[in-house]
Amino acid sequence: MFVKNAWYVAAWASEVEAAPFSRTLCGVPVVLFRHPGSGKVAALLDRCCHRGTPLRFGQVVPEGLECGYHGMVFDAAGACVRIPGQASIPPKARVQSFPVVEQDELVWIWLGEPEQADPARIVSYPFHNDHAAWPHKCQVYHVKASSMLLVDNLMDLTHLAFVHKNTIGGNPKAHVEASMTVTPADDGLHFIRWLMDSAPPPTYTKAVSLADRIDRWMEFQYIAPGAVLQWTGGIDSGKGAVENRDQPGFSLRIFHGLTPETETTCFYFWSAANGYRQDDPAATDALFHEIDTAFREDKAIVEAQQAMLIDRGEQGLIDIVSDAARIHMRRAVKRMIAAENQAEAGHTPGA
Amino acid sequence: MFVKNAWYVAAWASEVEAAPFSRTLCGVPVVLFRHPGSGKVAALLDRCCHRGTPLRFGQVVPEGLECGYHGMVFDAAGACVRIPGQASIPPKARVQSFPVVEQDELVWIWLGEPEQADPARIVSYPFHNDHAAWPHKCQVYHVKASSMLLVDNLMDLTHLAFVHKNTIGGNPKAHVEASMTVTPADDGLHFIRWLMDSAPPPTYTKAVSLADRIDRWMEFQYIAPGAVLQWTGGIDSGKGAVENRDQPGFSLRIFHGLTPETETTCFYFWSAANGYRQDDPAATDALFHEIDTAFREDKAIVEAQQAMLIDRGEQGLIDIVSDAARIHMRRAVKRMIAAENQAEAGHTPGA
Amino acid sequence: MFVKNAWYVAAWASEVEAAPFSRTLCGVPVVLFRHPGSGKVAALLDRCCHRGTPLRFGQVVPEGLECGYHGMVFDAAGACVRIPGQASIPPKARVQSFPVVEQDELVWIWLGEPEQADPARIVSYPFHNDHAAWPHKCQVYHVKASSMLLVDNLMDLTHLAFVHKNTIGGNPKAHVEASMTVTPADDGLHFIRWLMDSAPPPTYTKAVSLADRIDRWMEFQYIAPGAVLQWTGGIDSGKGAVENRDQPGFSLRIFHGLTPETETTCFYFWSAANGYRQDDPAATDALFHEIDTAFREDKAIVEAQQAMLIDRGEQGLIDIVSDAARIHMRRAVKRMIAAENQAEAGHTPGA
Repeated sequence: MFVKNAWYVAAWASEVEAAPFSRTLCGVPVVLFRHPGSGKVAALLDRCCHRGTPLRFGQVVPEGLECGYHGMVFDAAGACVRIPGQASIPPKARVQSFPVVEQDELVWIWLGEPEQADPARIVSYPFHNDHAAWPHKCQVYHVKASSMLLVDNLMDLTHLAFVHKNTIGGNPKAHVEASMTVTPADDGLHFIRWLMDSAPPPTYTKAVSLADRIDRWMEFQYIAPGAVLQWTGGIDSGKGAVENRDQPGFSLRIFHGLTPETETTCFYFWSAANGYRQDDPAATDALFHEIDTAFREDKAIVEAQQAMLIDRGEQGLIDIVSDAARIHMRRAVKRMIAAENQAEAGHTPGA
Repeated sequence: MFVKNAWYVAAWASEVEAAPFSRTLCGVPVVLFRHPGSGKVAALLDRCCHRGTPLRFGQVVPEGLECGYHGMVFDAAGACVRIPGQASIPPKARVQSFPVVEQDELVWIWLGEPEQADPARIVSYPFHNDHAAWPHKCQVYHVKASSMLLVDNLMDLTHLAFVHKNTIGGNPKAHVEASMTVTPADDGLHFIRWLMDSAPPPTYTKAVSLADRIDRWMEFQYIAPGAVLQWTGGIDSGKGAVENRDQPGFSLRIFHGLTPETETTCFYFWSAANGYRQDDPAATDALFHEIDTAFREDKAIVEAQQAMLIDRGEQGLIDIVSDAARIHMRRAVKRMIAAENQAEAGHTPGA
Repeated sequence: MFVKNAWYVAAWASEVEAAPFSRTLCGVPVVLFRHPGSGKVAALLDRCCHRGTPLRFGQVVPEGLECGYHGMVFDAAGACVRIPGQASIPPKARVQSFPVVEQDELVWIWLGEPEQADPARIVSYPFHNDHAAWPHKCQVYHVKASSMLLVDNLMDLTHLAFVHKNTIGGNPKAHVEASMTVTPADDGLHFIRWLMDSAPPPTYTKAVSLADRIDRWMEFQYIAPGAVLQWTGGIDSGKGAVENRDQPGFSLRIFHGLTPETETTCFYFWSAANGYRQDDPAATDALFHEIDTAFREDKAIVEAQQAMLIDRGEQGLIDIVSDAARIHMRRAVKRMIAAENQAEAGHTPGA
């Protein structure tokens, strides 16, 4: 059960080059291609309407995407514009197309009702466009787990002390004792954790010069169904970090985009931006590798969790105190799915 | 749903040597073996009637095939002729046997009603026996697609310009504009395409000396359910190629045998015969490698098509003009299956 | 359908070291760990009661097993004894635990009704503790076949002449003509085969000095559901081997432990003990490698048998004379399962 009427990350813009690019998103096989003239990205069902061949085996031509089997060509709207050896094109000769928007280095796709696809609802992430202030590198994993289990993972940071104890985790006590402020929102939630007057972890001191005690924050915004925006950093204690985080210190941003492939697999798009030594590409590289190592630890444990849930279900599982944000998050998604189901059944949500 | 009462290619004769050889055909696990005395090939269900062990783990002995687990021996008719440590053999000790005929370098098998297995109905391919006129090499692929999708592929040659554009395809316009004569038959269909007065493609000119303009033909005969006989070539224009194709020029023959393994996988047996430089084994090798490369392109796209059809079904697919032969072919197969179903239901077909 | 109320081999004791060790047994994902203080082995369901994560990703701590995701700790009885960041622990915070006993170098587990788990019912194998008289090496295979097919294999030794004809098998006629005494028991059966006054096989003569004719025995005890104890050897003819097998000669013991993983896969634990040149570690190694080679032959054929039975069922299979012990064995297991089913349905077995 996915939220249908929503913008999901389909790909990094850099993944959609001259050749058609395919990916199954929310159970739908999609082929993305970039128009050779305008450079605009289009998205079609990855299945030719002639014999069902995946269109990704074809090639991009001036008029659109040419099927690699018998050469039918489809434009960005999915209409067939050429059938080799046949003068007239029947109106049924078309494939489904999907609204796509390229924004902030990402290709966003709408797989639900096309008339509801409002680009204004796309999650904004301007940091991807500001390479001077936020130099970054990006990545995508195929994960054998529901996208929701990865969102769960990000909503309960107490896992850092256990999953990442050999990488970015550090002191378990500090993570558990951090103050945590959760603010539910209609489309998700926001939380921020502050560790005041604490020793800077090795990652921070390696990166920049800091005092013996710093004030650290971990800020996360979840925008349902699949975006998590993270800002993490630390400033020398006594400088009013809580009021103004835009002071010299350590600071990084991570974009997390989670898009279902199937009910139990997903794509995890993420970028890590260096907000502390912006002129040093080696620092951006080092940050990327550190995060990549840690996120592969998350991937491993969440895939094992998913396999166990497939095998044994959720019966008897309990919630604990650290699940607060996770529970808010799950409720937001459930509300969205319930509203869609009601709308499909002919009721307006809440009516 | 397979045609049951039909001869299918089970193996190349050269595949059935001293050791038992197994292959699942139309969903039936079959073991083939060659009698050490007579050299005759036999076919049994690949499952010992004692404990169900595949008989392919056994060995051929003078009396027949000896199970590799506890040593029971079965003759070519499937009757048990030895049980180690047991004097009397119960009549129930037998495995199913299948009619097989070795002909034209192929082993043909009949998996339907044994009493209907008339060897006269086996597709004749004498070219396999004429190594002087038609030196050839053979191949077999395991393909993750229905055998019918491969027959489809052969019935619509407009795919050459797209699937094989980097190999044997050549000019798309030429293929689309070729004249095409389709002749339906009770057991399949025949078609021939002529490209008159056209430039010879590189494959041809590399092979033999030709004039600037040639008359080219592509002749295909489909014999349901699984044989396609191909004759392709070209002769200098103005020499009456249409009336007499047995003149000097370029000429090759391909045998295609398609046998289902399951509903969505099959075996693709083919041979390519050099009809232009018969005394040159290197020419036969080169032809084989060229065809092998091209047919692997077919295999790749048809496997992708099959995966998509499994995932998304055939709903909404449309036929186009170039499907004419394919539609005839599919009708022939449907008629055969319908006739079998009627016969099984106690009616004679057409009565 | 497994016998539930029974002790099964879960692991070799040496497999359960400092790190948690997991294995699915009778369909239940189990994690085994060794308490760092007492060294005692405990067994829990391999699924944290918080978010379902497999506990094998965690680490052993003084209080028990710590989940690798959010750090909850469970003791040997499955009770949660720590939740990071949470003072009170709800009573529902627990995972299922299973009785385990470490005995004779094996870890035995009880997956049925815990109150019926009587350690006195564990199969005794003191030879594992007597390294002077029975130096041995042990092994475990994951086998893609029901554990019952492997027990079948051990109950009908006529397979030696066919499966192991190139390894330990030897003369087929000798195996078929051996005298065989089968003694059914409540919990299984016992059989012994004697080959009197026969030539010693190469394995024997390589191992020890023997006369031209020896009396050989193969003794097997099956204790349902999963243990087979084997004693095999030979003594010079004329020395009264039948009355006293503890005389100089050739002698080996094999422990076989078969534990289901699923209905169609299992774990095969075995050890081979050298009872003829106990002071020579190379002899123990050589024996192990000879048995390992032979048992991998069994594994291959039984896996093929299982695949065929999954594909085609058991319909039409027949029993032969050499199945006598196997049939007794299967009956013993059926009786146990029937008794359990009756007991579950509220009847006492036999009432």
